[in-house]
Amino acid sequence: MNSTDIQQFYARHMQLLDGGAAEAWAGTFTADAVFAAPSMTEPVRGRDGIAAGARAAVEGRAAAGEVHRHWVTMTTARSTGAGIEAVSYVQILATPQGGAPRVHLSCVMRDRLVRRDGELLVAERHITRDDRPAG
Amino acid sequence: MNSTDIQQFYARHMQLLDGGAAEAWAGTFTADAVFAAPSMTEPVRGRDGIAAGARAAVEGRAAAGEVHRHWVTMTTARSTGAGIEAVSYVQILATPQGGAPRVHLSCVMRDRLVRRDGELLVAERHITRDDRPAG
Amino acid sequence: MNSTDIQQFYARHMQLLDGGAAEAWAGTFTADAVFAAPSMTEPVRGRDGIAAGARAAVEGRAAAGEVHRHWVTMTTARSTGAGIEAVSYVQILATPQGGAPRVHLSCVMRDRLVRRDGELLVAERHITRDDRPAG
Repeated sequence: MNSTDIQQFYARHMQLLDGGAAEAWAGTFTADAVFAAPSMTEPVRGRDGIAAGARAAVEGRAAAGEVHRHWVTMTTARSTGAGIEAVSYVQILATPQGGAPRVHLSCVMRDRLVRRDGELLVAERHITRDDRPAG
Repeated sequence: MNSTDIQQFYARHMQLLDGGAAEAWAGTFTADAVFAAPSMTEPVRGRDGIAAGARAAVEGRAAAGEVHRHWVTMTTARSTGAGIEAVSYVQILATPQGGAPRVHLSCVMRDRLVRRDGELLVAERHITRDDRPAG
Repeated sequence: MNSTDIQQFYARHMQLLDGGAAEAWAGTFTADAVFAAPSMTEPVRGRDGIAAGARAAVEGRAAAGEVHRHWVTMTTARSTGAGIEAVSYVQILATPQGGAPRVHLSCVMRDRLVRRDGELLVAERHITRDDRPAG
């Protein structure tokens, strides 16, 4: 495990999402990845579903005339038999055209990362939102 | 000195505080650590006082129904004879239940870090708040 | 290339700017650096112009009674024949005396970094603001 690698991974990962590259973003998950977030009634499984969710989000932001930036920091990481458990803080910064930025959401992101052919990929992601009590 | 170590240290350190683990958080300071912040009439000395302050803060946030996240970034670090002088920006992001996040405070954190049995610990901390002129 | 070096560079670079050290800040650019930002009618070239712009910004913030902090994160970096292309998110956090912080701007910073005598320097910088459509 190398924490610099993990930071570089998240930087590229979120630049893809915020830049609207939904398919390339989905490619940074494993083929059978599980993605669970409070906005979903049940977890999404696999790259097609993850890409579809990202496309919908990208279109929603374009329709709203907003740019979103996902800031990932404060990552702790530990190796387990099943990969790397990485826990990070996420801040979504939203800027409307011609307007002031606002902090849209504060979240905690719990990922299981795995290495495939030397590249890190997300195998599991669980998001919790700070505005909603967990559990 | 290893700046990746320092980042990992701060990530774990603040996840403990924000997660409400006041005693474990105090354990990331040296036994005789000095902690000075504008909210204090005089610096706190030692882990008991640091843990008591953290517990009070955790209870205050719970009573207010808020989640706080301490973001530490932009850390510069240099070795001195007495340890590592680390200067960081700190942003406290506060989210009320069911409400929007706000940036609660912007601070500068000046730490003297020391290594004990291979682990980094805070020996001295001085916080300044950007909303109050220093000195 | 070493991404930890790059982070350390940006931390020092922005602490200089936010601390009002306009000349020292200009010294972290190459002598013939090009700096382009939406607030400029045309790019600034060279350290004198960069220092002058920084001094004006420092004086403006002092007159307004505000502290600004430039947060740089989510940096992706790749080596090219001409140096290192580094793309980062930038958040400017502004705090008035006695008031609450606000996110003043969300930007993307595209730098070409070069190494001179072992030190990183900015050779080219292009800033885009999230509140203004690019291109």
